Amino acid sequence: MNLSHIEHLGIAVKSIADSLPYYEEVLGLKCYSIEEVADQKVKTAFFKIGQTKIELLEPTSEESTIAKFIEKRGEGIHHIAFAVTDGVANALTELSGKGVRLIDAAPRRGAEGLNIAFLHPKSTCSVLTELCEKPAE
Amino acid sequence: MNLSHIEHLGIAVKSIADSLPYYEEVLGLKCYSIEEVADQKVKTAFFKIGQTKIELLEPTSEESTIAKFIEKRGEGIHHIAFAVTDGVANALTELSGKGVRLIDAAPRRGAEGLNIAFLHPKSTCSVLTELCEKPAE
Repeated sequence: MNLSHIEHLGIAVKSIADSLPYYEEVLGLKCYSIEEVADQKVKTAFFKIGQTKIELLEPTSEESTIAKFIEKRGEGIHHIAFAVTDGVANALTELSGKGVRLIDAAPRRGAEGLNIAFLHPKSTCSVLTELCEKPAE
Repeated sequence: MNLSHIEHLGIAVKSIADSLPYYEEVLGLKCYSIEEVADQKVKTAFFKIGQTKIELLEPTSEESTIAKFIEKRGEGIHHIAFAVTDGVANALTELSGKGVRLIDAAPRRGAEGLNIAFLHPKSTCSVLTELCEKPAE
């Protein structure tokens, strides 16, 4: 498995509308996309800083894992996503062979059309970790 | 204030020794430095991935803010640090004028000799946020 950079950081917020002024007016970042990911029951807002995106995650249902995260821990950084250069599927095979616990046994489609898979925090020093790659054209 | 990239992510861990195998053997990153920051009561381990460093933070005393963080929330991502291109002192003046609550009213020396300052999570959508810059030669 080869990781090139931090593709994005997922940050759980109660409200994207309430968080935008901080990211845009205080930090000076520009929100370039707001997207709903229906199967994750979240609305997302994206900013770019250097190589990395910041992805705000607002729950659209109380059943969303983000709603549960906020209820338990409050707003804050939810996960880290690494860009994989040699394939998410290959990475999952390799990691599984090393005994890493996977949340997604196979890559699935995430926000921005990326192939993604999550690793379980039990195997990642308590940091919820996502692997992602751009799908082949 | 101009931010160029995410300089590092601080991750609270109980033990750097116990966490190294995950970062090195699973993620394939290379720890290039282990440093003690006495006034913060932490030991730090650094990895580089793309533009960003991962900084593991292990408390060296029960009085360390990292020990208190782990006690309250468990291990996990502790803070995000942005690289500022136009000076941390200038940034603090600007942010203070915008009503942002500061932890450090003036820049101080942090790990790796950077000038750093922390902003208060009350003003940063609950994400403990650090600004940093390389000091002038």
